[in-house]
Amino acid sequence: MSFNVDSKGVYAIATTPFCDDGSIDYNSVDKLTDFYQESGCTGITILGIMGEAPKLEPEESKAIVKRVVSRAKVPVIVGVSSPGFAAMRSLARSSMDVGAAGVMIAPPPALRTDDQIVNYFSGAVEAVGEDVPWVLQDYPLTLTVVMSPGVVAKIISNHPSCLMLKHEDWPGLEKISRLRAMQRAGDLRPFSILCGNGGMFLDFEPERGADGAMTGYGFPDMLTELVSLSAAGKRDEAHDLFDAHLPLIRYEQQLGIGLAVRKHVLKRRGVIASDIQRKPSQPLTATAKAEVDYLLARVGRQDARARL
Amino acid sequence: MSFNVDSKGVYAIATTPFCDDGSIDYNSVDKLTDFYQESGCTGITILGIMGEAPKLEPEESKAIVKRVVSRAKVPVIVGVSSPGFAAMRSLARSSMDVGAAGVMIAPPPALRTDDQIVNYFSGAVEAVGEDVPWVLQDYPLTLTVVMSPGVVAKIISNHPSCLMLKHEDWPGLEKISRLRAMQRAGDLRPFSILCGNGGMFLDFEPERGADGAMTGYGFPDMLTELVSLSAAGKRDEAHDLFDAHLPLIRYEQQLGIGLAVRKHVLKRRGVIASDIQRKPSQPLTATAKAEVDYLLARVGRQDARARL
Amino acid sequence: MSFNVDSKGVYAIATTPFCDDGSIDYNSVDKLTDFYQESGCTGITILGIMGEAPKLEPEESKAIVKRVVSRAKVPVIVGVSSPGFAAMRSLARSSMDVGAAGVMIAPPPALRTDDQIVNYFSGAVEAVGEDVPWVLQDYPLTLTVVMSPGVVAKIISNHPSCLMLKHEDWPGLEKISRLRAMQRAGDLRPFSILCGNGGMFLDFEPERGADGAMTGYGFPDMLTELVSLSAAGKRDEAHDLFDAHLPLIRYEQQLGIGLAVRKHVLKRRGVIASDIQRKPSQPLTATAKAEVDYLLARVGRQDARARL
Amino acid sequence: MSFNVDSKGVYAIATTPFCDDGSIDYNSVDKLTDFYQESGCTGITILGIMGEAPKLEPEESKAIVKRVVSRAKVPVIVGVSSPGFAAMRSLARSSMDVGAAGVMIAPPPALRTDDQIVNYFSGAVEAVGEDVPWVLQDYPLTLTVVMSPGVVAKIISNHPSCLMLKHEDWPGLEKISRLRAMQRAGDLRPFSILCGNGGMFLDFEPERGADGAMTGYGFPDMLTELVSLSAAGKRDEAHDLFDAHLPLIRYEQQLGIGLAVRKHVLKRRGVIASDIQRKPSQPLTATAKAEVDYLLARVGRQDARARL
Repeated sequence: MSFNVDSKGVYAIATTPFCDDGSIDYNSVDKLTDFYQESGCTGITILGIMGEAPKLEPEESKAIVKRVVSRAKVPVIVGVSSPGFAAMRSLARSSMDVGAAGVMIAPPPALRTDDQIVNYFSGAVEAVGEDVPWVLQDYPLTLTVVMSPGVVAKIISNHPSCLMLKHEDWPGLEKISRLRAMQRAGDLRPFSILCGNGGMFLDFEPERGADGAMTGYGFPDMLTELVSLSAAGKRDEAHDLFDAHLPLIRYEQQLGIGLAVRKHVLKRRGVIASDIQRKPSQPLTATAKAEVDYLLARVGRQDARARL
Repeated sequence: MSFNVDSKGVYAIATTPFCDDGSIDYNSVDKLTDFYQESGCTGITILGIMGEAPKLEPEESKAIVKRVVSRAKVPVIVGVSSPGFAAMRSLARSSMDVGAAGVMIAPPPALRTDDQIVNYFSGAVEAVGEDVPWVLQDYPLTLTVVMSPGVVAKIISNHPSCLMLKHEDWPGLEKISRLRAMQRAGDLRPFSILCGNGGMFLDFEPERGADGAMTGYGFPDMLTELVSLSAAGKRDEAHDLFDAHLPLIRYEQQLGIGLAVRKHVLKRRGVIASDIQRKPSQPLTATAKAEVDYLLARVGRQDARARL
Repeated sequence: MSFNVDSKGVYAIATTPFCDDGSIDYNSVDKLTDFYQESGCTGITILGIMGEAPKLEPEESKAIVKRVVSRAKVPVIVGVSSPGFAAMRSLARSSMDVGAAGVMIAPPPALRTDDQIVNYFSGAVEAVGEDVPWVLQDYPLTLTVVMSPGVVAKIISNHPSCLMLKHEDWPGLEKISRLRAMQRAGDLRPFSILCGNGGMFLDFEPERGADGAMTGYGFPDMLTELVSLSAAGKRDEAHDLFDAHLPLIRYEQQLGIGLAVRKHVLKRRGVIASDIQRKPSQPLTATAKAEVDYLLARVGRQDARARL
Repeated sequence: MSFNVDSKGVYAIATTPFCDDGSIDYNSVDKLTDFYQESGCTGITILGIMGEAPKLEPEESKAIVKRVVSRAKVPVIVGVSSPGFAAMRSLARSSMDVGAAGVMIAPPPALRTDDQIVNYFSGAVEAVGEDVPWVLQDYPLTLTVVMSPGVVAKIISNHPSCLMLKHEDWPGLEKISRLRAMQRAGDLRPFSILCGNGGMFLDFEPERGADGAMTGYGFPDMLTELVSLSAAGKRDEAHDLFDAHLPLIRYEQQLGIGLAVRKHVLKRRGVIASDIQRKPSQPLTATAKAEVDYLLARVGRQDARARL
């Protein structure tokens, strides 16, 4: 499996596991890497927004990249978004040196006009190097930068090294349709689309033209099954599986505490040892934890993976 | 049923039905008013964000208020949010004159600090009059104004005429818990909490202390049943009903096209004659319409109301 | 003097004078209208952001339009920006009916992408009517909508009824140069550019290609002299005059209290009877008032108009 | 001279000089350090927003800190604002280790409520260590975080290690007055206030209670003279000096190109060898450069320092 414009399936957005004292839990990093692969993931994305990247020292970031890349048998993408190009280049370069498959770049919140956005990515590509394959992250809800389909198309056209769109606009179904229509019309070269937003629209996204998901929901094994069912044209089965998980997917889709939910589930599944986050963090209250456990029990009625 | 600090159940956020030529469809206004009441709604909120209020001429707004108020047997709340206090007062006063139960006020997007928000509502209350009962709308996702629980508490304490919170922060479950805890501690007087966000968390919100919902999902009859099940302590049944509708609730929760979904469902249910919106609007594509219909069919397997 | 693509000079952004009881002071409206014309203004813009438009009832807005239009011998532009097209059309139509020369439209704060902005103005032009001459207001600092030169050009190309750009981007000198360069290259038809931002860059803007100013600084007579000096190529004299006023221009350029400074100066000049604003407003503290008076005294050493 | 709650005068916001090949120009770093001291500056702030900090590799940042600290005889403050606490702590600790006097921390753009802001600084102080003296940066125009006087007061009260406010709210004169009034009322302990915003209101800020300036205007020698004149009660002379420079101060106060103006002036004064910036940057056009030179010539008529 390699990272290219035909990449399909599920790229897991990896959390960063910490020990209770706040240090990186490398044992859990390894278990998580294995877990994603055993779950059928076709790639792993590390140091993304949900990977607590800004809470890591530069040396820690590099150490995690090295650890995951050396263990994983699937492509590893490294989030390198940064307020400045110097830090972006530094992490991109060191990641590629140890064997990462590519990097992921999100636009900084201050960008507004189409030109500003297009120019920013020209600068970013110049900074990391035109030879570094990369994923364009389109996430307006958190980043406040809104890219029209035309802007996404222009960035992809400008930069042959952009192989994939991490699509998490909301609403976003029409955006997928429009980008794929541009390709059918011959106006846009091939590129992969994997969807984020915690999987909230993954029942319909593949039908619109997405190649799969890039998200960190605590059941990546369910995500890979869902994407396979969609690919096999088993629409009703795909929706049945999706609907069984939607109450939990929806609960996880809460800005701020979503990561706490995710880590709680991964801990309950025995993948990571602690659900602690580095500060600033929003831990789950006892009530919230009980709500998640109730939802897990309900999912478990239809999906054995959730019987914990 | 009256509008007060003990108000419970479901206040429907009413859409504004138009004829295909763009004029107001008063026949559908009447049918919609009846439908909400027959669905068990304990109140109706008109001219809210989802009611296309800014697309109405001042005279049209007043005419709709008069029409709904004169027909409804439940309390009618009128959204009067406005960039300026003059228009707010004008609509509030004319609405109360024809028999509205109260008004709803959202903060303008430019507010930032706690003091600015608290002062804004002091000005608003002075403008509409201290005798006008009102609902405080807390909707950061769209309005970009973030109110901490302390700010909400201060506004409620400052203004005896504020009877209800329309809660649609996201995430927001802890906010409900904290406000209710303040009351139990004796730090805050009683007020009603009805939840928005299209019902996305209405399975848990009543357990946290909410009194019900104020939202416009196309199945208000399901919302009232859900709130009743919660009130009766039938947790599992409530979640079963909620989960059956969640895929559609989720689909409707898409900024911009959500209203198109809602009107499409209400039209298919025979309540309104046309699903047209005034400009600017985002109509549903054929693909999106087919997706909604597919979801309706799936909901229909478990809920007869969705068999259309 | 008419309002067209060759319009030059100074369009005064008119304040709205109130009596101490908050009612509109029509006597001062008349005096202000005369004052602007006696100051050499080639046009008057009413109901703009600094005209407290959102604090007016719809009937009051219409009454002010009628009053100013019937008295003025120069073109009167009416600000009709509104959250919805219905209110915009209503005010635009009634203003044109009583003899306004055109309207001014600013984009609503939610717009982000180039397409969204361009489409918004298509909708606005459809709403007010393609026969209504209008001014495009570009004011990112307050409106948070950023228009690239390409977007401004596209809007102007799309709509023959757009005759003028009210330019108040900051920084904005290069934007003027680029738009004028597009015209010289034959890519853009003629249109007038008048500059806002309180006059903060009016020493250089005419040299970049602006036709004058559209702003409400308390010394419109100085603005018209400045624009004339620039037009006559008297660069040093223009800068001397500008520099004499810059400390006060700068002091007025404070969001929120700027209008209070402006009204205070107009009152001290004997043009309006009261400097009161409708709520919400930020009045000047005694210290601030003393600072303005000190600056007036200093300006007065070089410009007799400021000796009050 | 030490950095404490009584600090007065001018802390220069240092630019970071680069060679034409983009590497750090340490020779110019030294000359700049000397120049600031010879200009009478009582402190130097490095790696601030105008110091191109995000464009530096972590090692480069540390090297610059070491270089300036080892050469300067005045206190050196290091900007350590960062999206995450890990990088903030890392730079703060390494800076203090080599002899920095303290650090400066600005809030990240996502903060909205008073509580969020207050809590953020608690986390930041915990991260860098309660023993590290620091400057609170209040810069809403760029950071979009608005702190009321009450929030500033709370942060200062919570953290004895906060010794200074870098005040650059706009408008901001009343904020200074209110904070100083809180102190006179015994509600707030002493702290220093130095003002930013490029000096745009430095004629009035000391009279309101500010202790001086922290900004990077190309004439720090003029800033120190201005603050001295104010301190000596020579109001008219202070304003005369200020007014002579205001046209240039105003021109520099243009977001994006302001740094280019500043570096151009410092280069023309012979302090730095190149005015190049690292990307992303907005260089001056030939027209803009000519405008700056024209303003310099005009300032030079009244201030010999500007005769270049």
